[in-house]
Amino acid sequence: MTGRPDDIHPVAPERTQDPQGTPPPAREGIELDTDALEREVERLVDAGAPAEVIAAKVAEFEPVDAAETLAELEPEASIEVLQAMEDEAAAEALAHMDLPLAATVLVDLDPPEAARLIDLMEPDDAADILQELPRAVASDILARLKPKRAAQLGKLALYDPRTAGGMMTTDILVVREAGSIGQAIDAIKHQPSEESQTEVYVVDEQRRLVGTVSMRSLLVGEDTAPVAPLVTRDIDVLTAEQAREEVADLFQRYDYITVPVVDHDRRILGMVTIDDVVDIIESERSEDAQKLVGVAEDEGVHSSVREKMRGRSPWLMFNLIAAQAGSVVLLVYHGFIEAIPIVAAVYPVIANQSGNAGQQSLAVTLRGIVRDQIRRDRVPRLLMRESLTGLFTGFAVGASFAAAIALMHLIVPELNWRLGIVAGLAMALAMPVSCLVGGAIPLILDRRGFDPATASSIFLTMLTDFLSYGIFLSLAFLFRSWLGVGAPPLHAP
Amino acid sequence: MTGRPDDIHPVAPERTQDPQGTPPPAREGIELDTDALEREVERLVDAGAPAEVIAAKVAEFEPVDAAETLAELEPEASIEVLQAMEDEAAAEALAHMDLPLAATVLVDLDPPEAARLIDLMEPDDAADILQELPRAVASDILARLKPKRAAQLGKLALYDPRTAGGMMTTDILVVREAGSIGQAIDAIKHQPSEESQTEVYVVDEQRRLVGTVSMRSLLVGEDTAPVAPLVTRDIDVLTAEQAREEVADLFQRYDYITVPVVDHDRRILGMVTIDDVVDIIESERSEDAQKLVGVAEDEGVHSSVREKMRGRSPWLMFNLIAAQAGSVVLLVYHGFIEAIPIVAAVYPVIANQSGNAGQQSLAVTLRGIVRDQIRRDRVPRLLMRESLTGLFTGFAVGASFAAAIALMHLIVPELNWRLGIVAGLAMALAMPVSCLVGGAIPLILDRRGFDPATASSIFLTMLTDFLSYGIFLSLAFLFRSWLGVGAPPLHAP
Repeated sequence: MTGRPDDIHPVAPERTQDPQGTPPPAREGIELDTDALEREVERLVDAGAPAEVIAAKVAEFEPVDAAETLAELEPEASIEVLQAMEDEAAAEALAHMDLPLAATVLVDLDPPEAARLIDLMEPDDAADILQELPRAVASDILARLKPKRAAQLGKLALYDPRTAGGMMTTDILVVREAGSIGQAIDAIKHQPSEESQTEVYVVDEQRRLVGTVSMRSLLVGEDTAPVAPLVTRDIDVLTAEQAREEVADLFQRYDYITVPVVDHDRRILGMVTIDDVVDIIESERSEDAQKLVGVAEDEGVHSSVREKMRGRSPWLMFNLIAAQAGSVVLLVYHGFIEAIPIVAAVYPVIANQSGNAGQQSLAVTLRGIVRDQIRRDRVPRLLMRESLTGLFTGFAVGASFAAAIALMHLIVPELNWRLGIVAGLAMALAMPVSCLVGGAIPLILDRRGFDPATASSIFLTMLTDFLSYGIFLSLAFLFRSWLGVGAPPLHAP
Repeated sequence: MTGRPDDIHPVAPERTQDPQGTPPPAREGIELDTDALEREVERLVDAGAPAEVIAAKVAEFEPVDAAETLAELEPEASIEVLQAMEDEAAAEALAHMDLPLAATVLVDLDPPEAARLIDLMEPDDAADILQELPRAVASDILARLKPKRAAQLGKLALYDPRTAGGMMTTDILVVREAGSIGQAIDAIKHQPSEESQTEVYVVDEQRRLVGTVSMRSLLVGEDTAPVAPLVTRDIDVLTAEQAREEVADLFQRYDYITVPVVDHDRRILGMVTIDDVVDIIESERSEDAQKLVGVAEDEGVHSSVREKMRGRSPWLMFNLIAAQAGSVVLLVYHGFIEAIPIVAAVYPVIANQSGNAGQQSLAVTLRGIVRDQIRRDRVPRLLMRESLTGLFTGFAVGASFAAAIALMHLIVPELNWRLGIVAGLAMALAMPVSCLVGGAIPLILDRRGFDPATASSIFLTMLTDFLSYGIFLSLAFLFRSWLGVGAPPLHAP
């Protein structure tokens, strides 16, 4: 990336105040490269620059980058810088911080300043932070706001942040169905609005949602014409209680930009916009990779050791039991292993390989489930394809394994071509079964109402270990005289 | 989900034509449940219903659901139904189909009908499909369109679909900076526009982008007032060549709804909207889980056996080598294993457990890399935390393992508390190292410019196998006399 720092300032002052109004010179498209500015801030901090200087530099960032840079500073430093920033920039940066951090910062600010910043935020961001604050601090802040604003935020803070109600903003444009376009435009003049709203909501006398009218049709219409004929009716709505995962799936599937949230009388409460949904989509999806190996969905790369342990330990404990169950075959056959101990160097490879083949089927099936691509009547065909893939690859890989074992005879005399044949055959048989199991486990968990990502991987490994050990050792036992294993084959030590 | 099929019709006819204009009755929020309608279509098809009847039913769906339902039908049936649908609905459904399928369908339609449908699509969708068509068919269709439209689509089709240029639409609202608000509104009346555009683009005489003006400020301004003072200047722009992954990252980070695309003279070419970006975000993220286990990113749940094998086999072949390398320790120690064969039932459990612990660290670190949360100077702290997590959990899980082995003594006499102590200690030591390795591998791959997801998992398993076998067998060998292993400890059979 060759991004110049300028590329990320949407409001670089020298351009906004350009007196000629000529366009800025051609430049490259925006790029993600905040490192240069971050390094500059670090340099200023290390040089002991005054908070005002650092604040001016931080304010040049996009809010999300400013938030990140502030989060990197020592707590006292970041509060000092925030206080030195202009209120609007400070409020925007706070709104983009992780909630717990934003709450910590707000608690440490003077209450009047904290209230000023909360007042400047969009209602949904403000409500989210208020929910994180100690009750006393939150009430103190609400008491300092205008009563109407306090009531709005207090109401929003009642919604669970993991629902549509908790995600919505209440700064929306609403007009009456009964009036003229001129009246509607007049109403819009006096309402706050998120920039992302393209459609104006139309309500009846009881504030029940009737439909939407596009900004464009108001713009090109006559002032005296009525609004009603322009209204698109029967639009999709959310209820405040819908889970945010469901909201994310809906936005993704139906390409919504904004969706209104209504109560049970269809009165409009607010709207959810796609930019809040995008973060959920991203985080839901990358959570799956973590859940698959038993990491709590909220564990981040910088979580504390205690948090990491709390999430992972139960899973590992469960895995310990599963792993022992998987290797119970080894205990059953341990007399035989004593008779031909070289097999103990062979079965881990078979288990590893068929475990991996199973993980591949698991990953593909899981993605299909997440993307809602698997219809019930297609399941048999899907599992058949996974098994066939495992069978064909199993024979190819098994043949290579047989050859490798035959070759290793030069170094380890007990590894001979006969053992190679048995091991290769075991691999060729274990892999299709593992692929079948890897495809089936998430489907079964999903069908039974469990999260198909959670613990799929444990069950899979247990089963593929069990299968690989079992198939290989049974085959070896079956062919024991061909392999030249002396009697007694199942002796006690 | 209790969704009634009605919930997913945004334009249910009986409501749109409601003569009283009263709001529809309160209903639940939208939900994802298209199964009921899908089943109905299937029933109609099975019953041999005429294409017109099926088409009417399919047209009740949202376009994306209609596309999916058509894709489920037999090819001839789906073309028949599409022909029976109204052109607009058919065009929308086609635009939501997978590209190769949409292309197949278009090729089979009469050229005039195909051209009509292409003409009704949004330019970016139309251009994407044209790129998929055989050259002759595409030119034939273009020749049937109005020259201006054909030129627009032909130009769009030149952009690589994996770039901003390939994602953008050219249906955008553009006004002159020099005029009045009234003139701007007049210009908007005559331009097509995507619904998602909230800001109107402002250009100079050379069509160079100067900035944006919001619909709202045009709406509430006086007709005679000039546009220039309302313009927000220095907005973020994309170039047509930027890769779509980069575009997705930018939208996600900066919460854009739309971003204009400009050429190197800053002339406006089109705009990218977030709904097209969402699909990329989702698919990029869920690809990682597949790449981690060596599945090609484009393998879908319904890919053919041949495609599945082509993507997976090389990885499994590589894994075979890695797995054998990992178990080389077993060959080195195989004389010792013969002396105390019960260990062959113990080390797979240790390898499995520390492999899992490593996978957990890997998943968390990978997510941190993908979300761009890992700063270089934080890496040592991060790896330290992973190691400590492994150490503490290792001791807890190791103690349980030791106890389990001591208990199993009742069934398998060779499993005794001394072996339990050694096995538990080995687990406690192997786990922190595995966590360290699991955290380090994706960081190293990323630093060296490789995709951190690809093959991380193979390297990790190889190393954790190697470590677990090595640590356990070395410890057991060290304590061999305490474990009561008779001389000679390293005999040949």
